[in-house]
Amino acid sequence: MPLFPLRRIPSLVKPGQFLSRFSHSPHSSRRFFYGYISDSKMAPQLEPFFKQVDNSAESFIDRLRKAVAIPSVSAQDENREDVFRMAQFLATELEALGAEVHQRPLGKQPGKEHLDLPPVVIARYGNDKNKRTILVYGHYDVQPALKEDGWATEPFELTIDDKDRMYGRGSTDDKGPVLGWLNVIDAHRKAGVELPVNLLCCFEGMEEYGSEGLDDFIQAEAKQFFKDTDAVCISDNYWLGTEKPCLTYGLRGCNYYSISISGPAQDLHSGVFGGSAHEPMTDLVNILSKLVDAQGNILIPGLMDLVAPVTEEEKSLYGDISYTMDNLHESLGSETGIHPTKERTLMARWRFPSLSIHGVEGAYSAPGAKTVIPAKVIGKFSIRTVPNMESADVNKLVFDHIKAEFAKLNSKNKLDVWLQHDGKWWVASPKHWNFSAASKAVEQVFGVAPDMTREGGSIPVTLTFEQATGKNVLLLPMGSSTDAAHSVNEKLDRRNYIEGTKLLGAYLHYVAEEPVSA
Amino acid sequence: MPLFPLRRIPSLVKPGQFLSRFSHSPHSSRRFFYGYISDSKMAPQLEPFFKQVDNSAESFIDRLRKAVAIPSVSAQDENREDVFRMAQFLATELEALGAEVHQRPLGKQPGKEHLDLPPVVIARYGNDKNKRTILVYGHYDVQPALKEDGWATEPFELTIDDKDRMYGRGSTDDKGPVLGWLNVIDAHRKAGVELPVNLLCCFEGMEEYGSEGLDDFIQAEAKQFFKDTDAVCISDNYWLGTEKPCLTYGLRGCNYYSISISGPAQDLHSGVFGGSAHEPMTDLVNILSKLVDAQGNILIPGLMDLVAPVTEEEKSLYGDISYTMDNLHESLGSETGIHPTKERTLMARWRFPSLSIHGVEGAYSAPGAKTVIPAKVIGKFSIRTVPNMESADVNKLVFDHIKAEFAKLNSKNKLDVWLQHDGKWWVASPKHWNFSAASKAVEQVFGVAPDMTREGGSIPVTLTFEQATGKNVLLLPMGSSTDAAHSVNEKLDRRNYIEGTKLLGAYLHYVAEEPVSA
Repeated sequence: MPLFPLRRIPSLVKPGQFLSRFSHSPHSSRRFFYGYISDSKMAPQLEPFFKQVDNSAESFIDRLRKAVAIPSVSAQDENREDVFRMAQFLATELEALGAEVHQRPLGKQPGKEHLDLPPVVIARYGNDKNKRTILVYGHYDVQPALKEDGWATEPFELTIDDKDRMYGRGSTDDKGPVLGWLNVIDAHRKAGVELPVNLLCCFEGMEEYGSEGLDDFIQAEAKQFFKDTDAVCISDNYWLGTEKPCLTYGLRGCNYYSISISGPAQDLHSGVFGGSAHEPMTDLVNILSKLVDAQGNILIPGLMDLVAPVTEEEKSLYGDISYTMDNLHESLGSETGIHPTKERTLMARWRFPSLSIHGVEGAYSAPGAKTVIPAKVIGKFSIRTVPNMESADVNKLVFDHIKAEFAKLNSKNKLDVWLQHDGKWWVASPKHWNFSAASKAVEQVFGVAPDMTREGGSIPVTLTFEQATGKNVLLLPMGSSTDAAHSVNEKLDRRNYIEGTKLLGAYLHYVAEEPVSA
Repeated sequence: MPLFPLRRIPSLVKPGQFLSRFSHSPHSSRRFFYGYISDSKMAPQLEPFFKQVDNSAESFIDRLRKAVAIPSVSAQDENREDVFRMAQFLATELEALGAEVHQRPLGKQPGKEHLDLPPVVIARYGNDKNKRTILVYGHYDVQPALKEDGWATEPFELTIDDKDRMYGRGSTDDKGPVLGWLNVIDAHRKAGVELPVNLLCCFEGMEEYGSEGLDDFIQAEAKQFFKDTDAVCISDNYWLGTEKPCLTYGLRGCNYYSISISGPAQDLHSGVFGGSAHEPMTDLVNILSKLVDAQGNILIPGLMDLVAPVTEEEKSLYGDISYTMDNLHESLGSETGIHPTKERTLMARWRFPSLSIHGVEGAYSAPGAKTVIPAKVIGKFSIRTVPNMESADVNKLVFDHIKAEFAKLNSKNKLDVWLQHDGKWWVASPKHWNFSAASKAVEQVFGVAPDMTREGGSIPVTLTFEQATGKNVLLLPMGSSTDAAHSVNEKLDRRNYIEGTKLLGAYLHYVAEEPVSA
């Protein structure tokens, strides 16, 4: 419940809004529309919605239970039918709620042409030209899960423990958030409250397997089904901790590289040939050791010069963030952090590049001992990129450095280095009205100003939506840092699901009204 | 056929030999026993044996065909029965030839107690106190083989092509050489020539899977069944090339190490954590890069000081060896050799240590891209050892160096380094009478003095026999460098099998008589 003053309740805005929203200021709108602001009383339109969410909590949980029971694992061919079943489940639910729904086919799966890609479920709820149109994204496919992987419960049976933790594959990633949007419509209808925006949904079924085909689809629909979009909201990431919600305004990009070193025509016996031939693995570990030092400093000349300097304003965002070194140690499961403070730690994760060495293909990787000289080895590493690192510039510095280091070895082996894939970083203004609306919704529901966060990882669809629609994109997570997405015992806390449904709904009310900014 | 003068024909030696063999010189014996030495005529006892081998060639090949047809793959549980069948095949054949045969059980397989270890087939042919007793070793198990691995023919069907190459799993490794000894007895019996030595056989069935249980068996039988042994001969390696036989007098040892570096409690997402935590893989490639340089120089301080200096006499052995840089390039399938000359290349393989990095356990090793920070990685490397490197000294230098290099990294990760296994190097005197006898046999059969070689790899049973019996051990290969043991399309050339049978027989005649030396 709110712990401090409500600043404005935009959900009362009615016709006339379309003209007003581009001109009024928060203060003028507040004065214009409302007779009073109460510190303790809920505004009429959110209050019945919130109450309805509480009243419908069990049916919302039941909706999640049904969704979790469908093992829509996109990475496993044998579950493809289940992924389609999950699309149908969503479509049926949305239709029952009165939405216009389409299941859009994406064709055959590249490389597995016997498989159809799961459809993108798109929906429209409301078509009022006087309302803003908000496009929301989520995915209905899940990571693989087997009880024997170490799950304490059946992964595809939603199981609630005595601390109201709801365990099940997809509970937090991303079925809970997706159903959150359905719950919002549901509760509005049951409460008799009009949805203050037109809602467009884009729910995909291949997110956990590379979002095959989605980019082209979004690009095309940006001018069609999504053409009225005023802002985008994605709920597919997590709070920084467990207590305080966050809004996410930045993501690092990722340039993923392979270094191949080859010599002999086939693997050699190290007894027979050791000492007489240049060994690709020797060359490779040498090159890999020249990329990053043990303190995480990237050793590629010129790379750090591409990084935008930290501004004082930016620095000021970090102090208030609810995060401690203990949080880091808890998530690492060890005290092997590099930096001594939370500010430096978070900056290292969010706004500076990093370089990780992922592994080696072609060398001996099994337990035990094998005396092989691998004939060809491929080292894999990636660089997390940040403003203003352009992929082409990064590639040039990487390739030049690796070639120069290899030349120093005087090896007769053959070097190849190439970019496997890249994805650009994304940074939005946390002062945009899409964010300020979400910030108010967080304050309304959780009684606390959200952390303004970035993330170290990439969510490529974020950039796709931004580029395709030209609109601001907000990341508004529902789950918490302990939800174990992609791991065993994935869960979503009941609080995050139910209050999170309120948050998504409140966001729609605030964003309907938030004056233009940033 | 011989291309130059026969030097001596010891096979005429009859009773009286026991006394004479410790005193006579080659020249005195030759003068004593023979009226003349002919350049063109075969000595009576070898000539009928050789002729009989030629006459029996088809039946010897048929014997090999039957043996290859038994898929005695020791590494695969489902073939264990076949390994036992192969032992029985050998025992039956040896008994039919008049040998005393035992199949000695070795108990249950450690770690797989539902499996019985295959027996050691031991046999004695002849028990004449006036003759030398020669112990021969071979193995009757084989590497796995599947047609779909890339075999041009069925791996367990001996298939002879138009160049008389006999393809089949185990043809060269080591069923051909094992049957060579049986063929020798067979041909002597058929030719009515007495075997000039007592022959002891030790044929094992687990060589391709670690020779489980064999060491203890040999140690025990050295005082029992093998107690009369005067010299040992092992035929389980290969010529240096394809034309010229060799005798092998040295093997490198092998110390195999693991370096484990661990940090976080579980694998991390490189986007989320990259830059904020010490990464085990970063530390590991750094350590691995400090072990050996691209030119094969071992970087562990003090290690090269353990290596025995090269003597002038030793150097002189290398010039005549039939080997070229083209041979190296052919076997590498590339021109990525380190050294410019054959002498330096062979010394690097045979008499200097080498260090090879085999791979990394725990890192990402599949094709494709995965943005993981592995929580724990284990690097594997081994050092091929040579005189006078003692394992304990090597371990200390390795451990000290790695710990010192890790300390320099200032990483909070955890380092462990340990020896996985070690096996000592072996060097015999190539001037011992066991070798000089074999050398004469090579000259007799192939008309050329053999190359005196060492090998870079280890054949641990060699050292076991030397230590258990206290006698000289000779490695007398039958197959050539192109036989592809352990690979697809393993083969044994008909010439190597048939002339090789003559060689083994001739060796027994010469070794029966060779005066004591070295």
